[in-house]
Amino acid sequence: MKRASPRQNYHHGDLRSALLATGVRLLEGSGNADIGLREIAREVGVSATAVYRHFPDKDALLAALAETGFERLAAAQLKAAARYRNKAAAFRAIGRAYVRFALANPALFRIMTSHMHLTGANGSRGDNRAAALLRERIAELLPAAASEKRRTVTALQAWALVHGLAMLILGGQVPHDEALIKAVVDEFRPGETAT
Amino acid sequence: MKRASPRQNYHHGDLRSALLATGVRLLEGSGNADIGLREIAREVGVSATAVYRHFPDKDALLAALAETGFERLAAAQLKAAARYRNKAAAFRAIGRAYVRFALANPALFRIMTSHMHLTGANGSRGDNRAAALLRERIAELLPAAASEKRRTVTALQAWALVHGLAMLILGGQVPHDEALIKAVVDEFRPGETAT
Repeated sequence: MKRASPRQNYHHGDLRSALLATGVRLLEGSGNADIGLREIAREVGVSATAVYRHFPDKDALLAALAETGFERLAAAQLKAAARYRNKAAAFRAIGRAYVRFALANPALFRIMTSHMHLTGANGSRGDNRAAALLRERIAELLPAAASEKRRTVTALQAWALVHGLAMLILGGQVPHDEALIKAVVDEFRPGETAT
Repeated sequence: MKRASPRQNYHHGDLRSALLATGVRLLEGSGNADIGLREIAREVGVSATAVYRHFPDKDALLAALAETGFERLAAAQLKAAARYRNKAAAFRAIGRAYVRFALANPALFRIMTSHMHLTGANGSRGDNRAAALLRERIAELLPAAASEKRRTVTALQAWALVHGLAMLILGGQVPHDEALIKAVVDEFRPGETAT
């Protein structure tokens, strides 16, 4: 694992990015979701005061880490989808990428999914790029005449399926088996259901 | 909420049941999954030593609480299914009961799903009555000719769907909306998929 070299002078935005990147790295390195601001400051080589300027408290840090996680997840999903020209195949690739991301970044994923109250604009429901991406892709797969309700339900079905699969594997209830993940995700065919 | 009356003399099995029932009640009352053996002992009105005789450590307590949770979940699912004669309708009722149980018992559900390494017979994969029930019901819905692989994949799909939906709602990512839960679960039609 690459260790960030300590620097004393960061531009404002650069330091924020460096702190978050280091936060994510420390998270996955320790496997412990309880990450501290001081630990990150030490690792990056800046004072705790400099960190507090960007993240006044733990919640602000967690919210920013969650946001970073959702950006990375969306990037991974887009990259996975780009390999397919067929829309249904691309959709399934997005689903598999979701599960794979969760399994590869368990501590970050836990923060992403348990601190939505911090990232949601209205403080209650967190919306994010990954969810928006899912809705867009679902819309492409459903018949043009599909109702708004059907779009919402199908998008949530797809999200719940991959989220549940990831959580069951992370919780040790289901073995981590790539072929099984592929089979479970691939058999979800939103364009083909009867309703 | 009923408070257990303190008793000094329990039969062995009775005390264990009383401790677990109290543990579940305290869990949901505090909303805190970090429950202590001493707290349970105090509540039931027995000495900590008496509790340690049943649960030598925290892990033993958590494993027993998880098992109690799975028993209650299976009972709730069977009760929900019993209201329907149609097998497909009963299956959907089982799915909705899973989500409803998780939302009604969040702290217990968290223990059930994050401590499977403690309850699994072989220490790696936790098997439980709720999962077994799901597999049985899936088998009834699929064509007799369905392959073993298809049964496994479809059962896991159904489980992942309700598990993911429950976790997304518990995490605040999806609003708690009974009509939406019903729609998402009811649109899962394992007997009707193309594959």
